[in-house]
Amino acid sequence: MARPTPLSGFPEWLPDGRVVEQHVLDTLRRTFELHGFAGIETRAVEPLDQLLRKGETSKEVYVLRRLQEDAEGGGAQTDRAGQLGLHFDLTVPFARYVLENAGHLAFPFQRYQIQKVWRGERPQDGRFREFVQADIDVVGSGDLPYHYEVDLPLVMAEALGALRDIGVPPVRILVNNRRVAEGFYRGLGLTDVDGVLRSIDKLDKIGADAVADLLVAETGATSEQARACLALASISGGDAGVVDRVRALAAEHGVESELMEQGLAELRQLVEAAAVRAPGVVVADLKIARGLDYYTGSVYETVLVGHEQLGSICSGGRYDTLASDGNQTYPGVGLSIGVSRLVSRLLSGGLVRATRGVPAAVLVAVTAEETRPASDAVAAALRGRGIPVEVAPSAAKFGKQIRHADRRGIPYVWFPATEDGAADQVKDIRSGEQVDADAAAWAPPAADLWPRVVPAGD
Amino acid sequence: MARPTPLSGFPEWLPDGRVVEQHVLDTLRRTFELHGFAGIETRAVEPLDQLLRKGETSKEVYVLRRLQEDAEGGGAQTDRAGQLGLHFDLTVPFARYVLENAGHLAFPFQRYQIQKVWRGERPQDGRFREFVQADIDVVGSGDLPYHYEVDLPLVMAEALGALRDIGVPPVRILVNNRRVAEGFYRGLGLTDVDGVLRSIDKLDKIGADAVADLLVAETGATSEQARACLALASISGGDAGVVDRVRALAAEHGVESELMEQGLAELRQLVEAAAVRAPGVVVADLKIARGLDYYTGSVYETVLVGHEQLGSICSGGRYDTLASDGNQTYPGVGLSIGVSRLVSRLLSGGLVRATRGVPAAVLVAVTAEETRPASDAVAAALRGRGIPVEVAPSAAKFGKQIRHADRRGIPYVWFPATEDGAADQVKDIRSGEQVDADAAAWAPPAADLWPRVVPAGD
Repeated sequence: MARPTPLSGFPEWLPDGRVVEQHVLDTLRRTFELHGFAGIETRAVEPLDQLLRKGETSKEVYVLRRLQEDAEGGGAQTDRAGQLGLHFDLTVPFARYVLENAGHLAFPFQRYQIQKVWRGERPQDGRFREFVQADIDVVGSGDLPYHYEVDLPLVMAEALGALRDIGVPPVRILVNNRRVAEGFYRGLGLTDVDGVLRSIDKLDKIGADAVADLLVAETGATSEQARACLALASISGGDAGVVDRVRALAAEHGVESELMEQGLAELRQLVEAAAVRAPGVVVADLKIARGLDYYTGSVYETVLVGHEQLGSICSGGRYDTLASDGNQTYPGVGLSIGVSRLVSRLLSGGLVRATRGVPAAVLVAVTAEETRPASDAVAAALRGRGIPVEVAPSAAKFGKQIRHADRRGIPYVWFPATEDGAADQVKDIRSGEQVDADAAAWAPPAADLWPRVVPAGD
Repeated sequence: MARPTPLSGFPEWLPDGRVVEQHVLDTLRRTFELHGFAGIETRAVEPLDQLLRKGETSKEVYVLRRLQEDAEGGGAQTDRAGQLGLHFDLTVPFARYVLENAGHLAFPFQRYQIQKVWRGERPQDGRFREFVQADIDVVGSGDLPYHYEVDLPLVMAEALGALRDIGVPPVRILVNNRRVAEGFYRGLGLTDVDGVLRSIDKLDKIGADAVADLLVAETGATSEQARACLALASISGGDAGVVDRVRALAAEHGVESELMEQGLAELRQLVEAAAVRAPGVVVADLKIARGLDYYTGSVYETVLVGHEQLGSICSGGRYDTLASDGNQTYPGVGLSIGVSRLVSRLLSGGLVRATRGVPAAVLVAVTAEETRPASDAVAAALRGRGIPVEVAPSAAKFGKQIRHADRRGIPYVWFPATEDGAADQVKDIRSGEQVDADAAAWAPPAADLWPRVVPAGD
């Protein structure tokens, strides 16, 4: 087999990169669990007809076929019945899981889910075709109190904030409320709310003038209505003043809307609570539209401060109908972190590094193959006290064994005593310091015990 | 959407089942890391031609197709070039990862890998089509010392042994050495070694008489040769006595083989070391053949004592050529735990249970929606000290809030003080005991802090 080359869109990390990813995943999991979110996993596949319920994502699905089907004479299935596809997000499978298991879940049900998802992008697009998402959602049975729309972005702020000490930049969470936009548009006399949202969502990409043209061409807006929509989208701020500015704009255009007022009250509550619980993190930004996702209340996007061009690394919102089985409706609110995108940036941008790529803090040297059992015994004693250890692969010269540790970043080499009555010794190969040590008592400093992730400059 | 039904072969767990699976995964990971194995993940897909290099697995591969390909007019690809399939084990992707990254890895390279794998079984077979495997492997560049063939099954013994306290039965690791069997067969005059191994591998399924018939019919063995192969397969034992019995059998049949002697020396070393390092766990069993896998030295299977009919839950062996790029050969030895099979048995067999299905140890009650910020502040103080907490979803009557905690198995309910100068109180809802408490100081007993997994009877 010739040396294989990477597959575009399917990121993989070397062991030290995986230390970074694992640290990110462990940190997210811990924060989610401290907030009471239960971890679940769903299967990687869903029936194709369920994956295709949202039209716009259909092009991104990977469909599965059993190779054996051909041999069985079935040929490729041409209809969709019974076909399976890989999930492209964790929301569709979670909604299905809730319906399937509703009788066994206590509502409101808070879950986190950290899994890979797949999108069948064209290979030449250079996008990730496989990546890890970390989602939190709360779903109610019948109803779901508004305060979860305040709580969930703050859980994400805390989770991402817990990564600050490894060198992850601070985050800014941009929030909006669909009711404000919808109420405002309808109050203006515009009825194609989805069309307006879709156009506004392109603001960062194509600019205000082009969006104004789109609004006129595609939603039947007058140029004055288009300007009003753009004026709304230009409002942002970290305190309740944004609410006053939206009201002033509405008054200027003769807009009156109960829906807008309800949205503004919610937005005010979110911004005010966030200012107390996570000062400086949450900013109301009236241009946040979240494309065609079926959100009905709060919507969220998250940028890394100083890396805004990376786009949103954590997005989500409120669904009045996350799932429904005909009898019962399950409203939900949730956010999803694009872990692979974040980790990829941390690694490729040289923002963080792992102190080593292997777990072992200690390499136990082997004096001769006949005394390997003595080295194994030292390793067992250290592991029994929670210290990660490798034993040298061969009884090479000690200089070679030390180089073996050095190449892996293992900070300590342990030399078992070779004479009765002599003490074992352990060497810090960074400083060269070598001291007597007892495998039943010695431990490395906490900072050396496990690989750590630190800012790249440290 | 009607209530969906589970997909056969794609297991999913309720939150308390996931607590069990997560505990198993965390325990395995910790043991692997204590032994110096670096964690990696590989992408879920490999080029189809690489997946099909081992003929017998071709029928089990799920092939991917981008739904968009149809729309692009390409139609289904009929050749295999560029096609992708889901990996059906973690060995093929690991071998590819080693070749792809050899220049960046330090050898011998020890890695663990815990991921889902997929097999496109016929749906009606009732087998898992998606399941989690946990693999450890050591791979050398050019050579790999024999002692790793002793070490690796003992790491697995320790990892599985660390699950004993939750109620996992003890394990027995059955070991054999391909050199013994091959040397013995060739010494007998049999040349179709793979054919003999394939027949012997069916011993548990079809019995000795049918295997004897197979050996005669398919490998050209005489009935005396067949009886000798079966006699070899009947030898087992936990100490070096097995080596003497194999030698006696060989002498009886006039078999002389250097290859067999080399295998016996290795097998003796493994059994003797295991008797010291993990007494009673490792048993030499000369019938272990591991089907057609390309093992060249030690082979391993693992059964749960008392649940032998479940089959092997942890198997593996030594490959002289795990990977090769033409210039360099990479020998390896590794084992793989079938985590889903193990967890499924633990849950369906009622062997273990989680103390609760949610992380939270404490539910902070909400006296009135206006005082929710006070409850949020208590929760933040407790979480800041590492205690997992939920806040009540609504300011319902306290009895209802306590029932909410009870339904989830949350052991403590916290009542924020409602008057200035009064103390908060915390109630253990199992005993009913309620005491004054300070959110800056109180902690639950360690046994209540996080969900635990315990034997079902506890």
